[in-house]
Amino acid sequence: MNTLHIIFFIFAFLSSYTFHTISSANDFCVADLSLPQTLSGYSCKPEANVTVDDFVFSGLVEGKPIAPFNSGLTAATVANLPGLNGLDIAAARVDMGINGTVPIHSHPDASELLIIVEGEVTVGFITPQKAYVKTVKPSDVIVIPKGLLHFVINSGAGKAVIFGALSSSSPSVHVADYLLFGNDLSTSVIAQTTLLDVSQIEKLKAAFGGSG
Amino acid sequence: MNTLHIIFFIFAFLSSYTFHTISSANDFCVADLSLPQTLSGYSCKPEANVTVDDFVFSGLVEGKPIAPFNSGLTAATVANLPGLNGLDIAAARVDMGINGTVPIHSHPDASELLIIVEGEVTVGFITPQKAYVKTVKPSDVIVIPKGLLHFVINSGAGKAVIFGALSSSSPSVHVADYLLFGNDLSTSVIAQTTLLDVSQIEKLKAAFGGSG
Amino acid sequence: MNTLHIIFFIFAFLSSYTFHTISSANDFCVADLSLPQTLSGYSCKPEANVTVDDFVFSGLVEGKPIAPFNSGLTAATVANLPGLNGLDIAAARVDMGINGTVPIHSHPDASELLIIVEGEVTVGFITPQKAYVKTVKPSDVIVIPKGLLHFVINSGAGKAVIFGALSSSSPSVHVADYLLFGNDLSTSVIAQTTLLDVSQIEKLKAAFGGSG
Amino acid sequence: MNTLHIIFFIFAFLSSYTFHTISSANDFCVADLSLPQTLSGYSCKPEANVTVDDFVFSGLVEGKPIAPFNSGLTAATVANLPGLNGLDIAAARVDMGINGTVPIHSHPDASELLIIVEGEVTVGFITPQKAYVKTVKPSDVIVIPKGLLHFVINSGAGKAVIFGALSSSSPSVHVADYLLFGNDLSTSVIAQTTLLDVSQIEKLKAAFGGSG
Amino acid sequence: MNTLHIIFFIFAFLSSYTFHTISSANDFCVADLSLPQTLSGYSCKPEANVTVDDFVFSGLVEGKPIAPFNSGLTAATVANLPGLNGLDIAAARVDMGINGTVPIHSHPDASELLIIVEGEVTVGFITPQKAYVKTVKPSDVIVIPKGLLHFVINSGAGKAVIFGALSSSSPSVHVADYLLFGNDLSTSVIAQTTLLDVSQIEKLKAAFGGSG
Amino acid sequence: MNTLHIIFFIFAFLSSYTFHTISSANDFCVADLSLPQTLSGYSCKPEANVTVDDFVFSGLVEGKPIAPFNSGLTAATVANLPGLNGLDIAAARVDMGINGTVPIHSHPDASELLIIVEGEVTVGFITPQKAYVKTVKPSDVIVIPKGLLHFVINSGAGKAVIFGALSSSSPSVHVADYLLFGNDLSTSVIAQTTLLDVSQIEKLKAAFGGSG
Repeated sequence: MNTLHIIFFIFAFLSSYTFHTISSANDFCVADLSLPQTLSGYSCKPEANVTVDDFVFSGLVEGKPIAPFNSGLTAATVANLPGLNGLDIAAARVDMGINGTVPIHSHPDASELLIIVEGEVTVGFITPQKAYVKTVKPSDVIVIPKGLLHFVINSGAGKAVIFGALSSSSPSVHVADYLLFGNDLSTSVIAQTTLLDVSQIEKLKAAFGGSG
Repeated sequence: MNTLHIIFFIFAFLSSYTFHTISSANDFCVADLSLPQTLSGYSCKPEANVTVDDFVFSGLVEGKPIAPFNSGLTAATVANLPGLNGLDIAAARVDMGINGTVPIHSHPDASELLIIVEGEVTVGFITPQKAYVKTVKPSDVIVIPKGLLHFVINSGAGKAVIFGALSSSSPSVHVADYLLFGNDLSTSVIAQTTLLDVSQIEKLKAAFGGSG
Repeated sequence: MNTLHIIFFIFAFLSSYTFHTISSANDFCVADLSLPQTLSGYSCKPEANVTVDDFVFSGLVEGKPIAPFNSGLTAATVANLPGLNGLDIAAARVDMGINGTVPIHSHPDASELLIIVEGEVTVGFITPQKAYVKTVKPSDVIVIPKGLLHFVINSGAGKAVIFGALSSSSPSVHVADYLLFGNDLSTSVIAQTTLLDVSQIEKLKAAFGGSG
Repeated sequence: MNTLHIIFFIFAFLSSYTFHTISSANDFCVADLSLPQTLSGYSCKPEANVTVDDFVFSGLVEGKPIAPFNSGLTAATVANLPGLNGLDIAAARVDMGINGTVPIHSHPDASELLIIVEGEVTVGFITPQKAYVKTVKPSDVIVIPKGLLHFVINSGAGKAVIFGALSSSSPSVHVADYLLFGNDLSTSVIAQTTLLDVSQIEKLKAAFGGSG
Repeated sequence: MNTLHIIFFIFAFLSSYTFHTISSANDFCVADLSLPQTLSGYSCKPEANVTVDDFVFSGLVEGKPIAPFNSGLTAATVANLPGLNGLDIAAARVDMGINGTVPIHSHPDASELLIIVEGEVTVGFITPQKAYVKTVKPSDVIVIPKGLLHFVINSGAGKAVIFGALSSSSPSVHVADYLLFGNDLSTSVIAQTTLLDVSQIEKLKAAFGGSG
Repeated sequence: MNTLHIIFFIFAFLSSYTFHTISSANDFCVADLSLPQTLSGYSCKPEANVTVDDFVFSGLVEGKPIAPFNSGLTAATVANLPGLNGLDIAAARVDMGINGTVPIHSHPDASELLIIVEGEVTVGFITPQKAYVKTVKPSDVIVIPKGLLHFVINSGAGKAVIFGALSSSSPSVHVADYLLFGNDLSTSVIAQTTLLDVSQIEKLKAAFGGSG
């Protein structure tokens, strides 16, 4: 077969066809974080400006353990890994000290799959009918269905390390305490709509920075 | 437990994590009506400009009854309630006088659920196989599947009030008469493609403002 | 035009074409509640068994007010209105007595649009950044974005009536109190992951039927 | 490189991995037409029973021209080409005699792209604002957006042949005349909700087989 | 019925309702190719600038046959037919000379339906388990499920003509040879990850314009 | 507040409301692997049979390194972790020996995010325009957009360990060599549609178990 013919073919083939059908937005859509968000995510960065580094994040390191929960967290989302835009996936790393905790929270827009790397932790999620709780260890994976309240407790003797994968490139995080006690929702409204005692609400508002 | 520690934790926890994962577009995306529409709806207004009033519409009042259909209509859609953007829901209110009618129409992009509040109305929708027709009254709800032609007739003795919910934040309304007789589609084309008589077409074009 | 020819045409046209392209599942898919659920909803009831009554629910009446929240609730979902299957919409009616409350809850899979029919109520929803709260009255509509915690308080002098539309035919209801205090999640786990006092948890577990 | 090693590798690699991750439903899902439809289409035929013939339909021939519309139609949809299940595409062939017509209709669930193969035809679609009409010929393609009423008229001197592609594997066909005049919807209801004359309705009911 | 009243009604009806609910983006969204792409496609051109020509492409002609594959290709995609935006459909025309070939390729984002118009061709697609191959002729259609590698060989005595419909308005084209041998991926990486011989890789890199 | 009243309320509230709106399918849908697959995944196991173990997989261990690629692989997908059904996420673990390789492959239905845990690897993915290649190490994450061919080479001095997250609960794996050389696709067809030499094809068919 004549190589020159092949080269000619390929150039002709692609110049006629790809002229109007192949664009980077078909193969990927790296976020242009400077444009307004749309309902489906960020607009696409022009392909000419895309490099392999748009698909790499180098900071999934151990997060600094913080008192009193004694857990650290880092994450790779579209905000620091713009190549994730539209791909419906993100990653997190959780480092938990002795007796460390991840407080009850939900991701309204993402399921989460936890890969236990080190230590022993107790993971739970809650439905209106039932709490599903399991103690897991390295080589175990456990999945939290989208939207459900869940928590992690370091139930082992040493530290624990977990990698998490989430089914959104920009997962929202709703920590129950912060939603209830960290803003200006008035104490009387909280009391009436949760039946918590006023003294309890005031104590946690003080802790979580809430006013009202 | 030491409150200061908790406050420190929360600030540290959220400042490290939410720095790159929590944005308003995750929790909602209020329409910026000044930007071009996209296939998924409007782009998001910056969160700093969002207030609770973006989620409220105060005009779902009784619409003025209009001759000869003797029905009035108001609606809350993304255009007057920008918080609906991306939420796939809208509301309407229909007030029908004696013998009032909602002419045959469809919503190509939305199902519609009617809540009967006052009076007695006959609701129908049509498939190629069959017409589904039911007379309903207060405490009844009836659903019209997406894309199907439907109508409402006030079949009771007094006025009727209906609330409607639609499964799109910006439902399109295709009134059959208006599509056929309200534009410049020529009489001969309509006759050939519907088998309606020319005299009938001309009469309705006069009524609905059509030319051609 | 010859009527017999037209009839012949229509029968021939439809017998050749509709033979393989028109089925009820294209126009609607009424739930067969006796078959297992799928990820996209229920399987479709055979069209021959479908009647207009599959699209009507006659029980959206005033719900019995219940102490101490003094609010009643009824709803039309796919379980009692099988024609809703796949249409991504449902309806609810809330009747609130003096000082009545709808406790803090979320719908992880649905947005909710509230149409105020009678009385004056205070509606709020909460994001990690902020609480959005508004007092609304008849002719107002207010929308709660999907997945967000929200509540309603009857803030007027008399009773209140609200119609709600939800963007799912089978919305899940997650009442915060019930998730936290209504099951067998142990008191120590709740305390560690919410920072609530043990005495508060025990009090609410007693109220909401929780064990552990 | 040692061939035996490679063979060993491949078998080992795939036996460990594909054991639980590769199934035909990932690559395709041929319709099992004997099971109930679901909202997402048909359930999948077991892969062992799938052959290449499930992906081929051999009847996209010229349809018999029918009086008085003088047009013939054949189609390949999931019902005769079960490999289309879930692929959101179907094909049709339209053969139009002199002065042939495709009456006004819509596909509520599919866009349609027409490829003109022979002859000259006038294609139109209608929105509430405007009719979009164009005379097209071989080498032209024209697209009809989903849900819009449209028609085709053979405006050339000879016969016309068109291939159509639709964005659903089971597109619904709503012919306006048949919906309005081909079932048991009563003449008085049609008159009240369309403003058509009773005599016109009765004439077309006679033609299209309607009762009532 | 009084025509003036009807006209009044229609104007009033539509001016109150359509003011905020009917816009072109509901009925269609013609691509504004000058704005950045989003994950759901292009932003919508203002309706006032849309004409019927946005929905028509006039170049689906015979593509110039190119040596050595001896096949020509033209296509109608959103880039030359902006009305396709969001409609999930596109068209292609393939003209194959004697012994012509369409090399192995995939469309990661589109299924493809081939309508054989002239000649006899052998079409095949490949899953991890099996190759599905069929020789087809005019009046046959064959579908290639999304994402699968496939090819076409002119196996008849004369030329062949095929129309293709794709389930994306902007299908990506991944020709295996071009992906492997047409860029700067190094020969040693290709050899290690495909087990192809270095001499074979160098030969095809020369043919397909690859470096490295 | 009277505890008995609260208990009464909760039971009454939930018995009236949850009777028809809360079911496990709203909160999760654990796969019933014994029923036929649907286009949206598996049907749901009855909630009464669901336990927390449906959400846990305990085998994400080091896979046995296999010659000559010297890499091992294990995965958690819906087949061994049925709680993943419908959650659009899965996990994999790759262990690579010295000079180990993951051959060029794609996942037509999933993006993949790689978390580097140990060692140094070179990861690449390929578009028609360009190869994107990066050498990464622990604390790096790199994402492969859906449908793109990609590979991993152990480019470090020691072994390497990678966790992968995929955006499908049942990702398909298309290894290029296996698709081309592991089935009964005839040598002449492969030669004609890839331009590979016959001797090369025969050599790899021998290695990958292909016939024809």
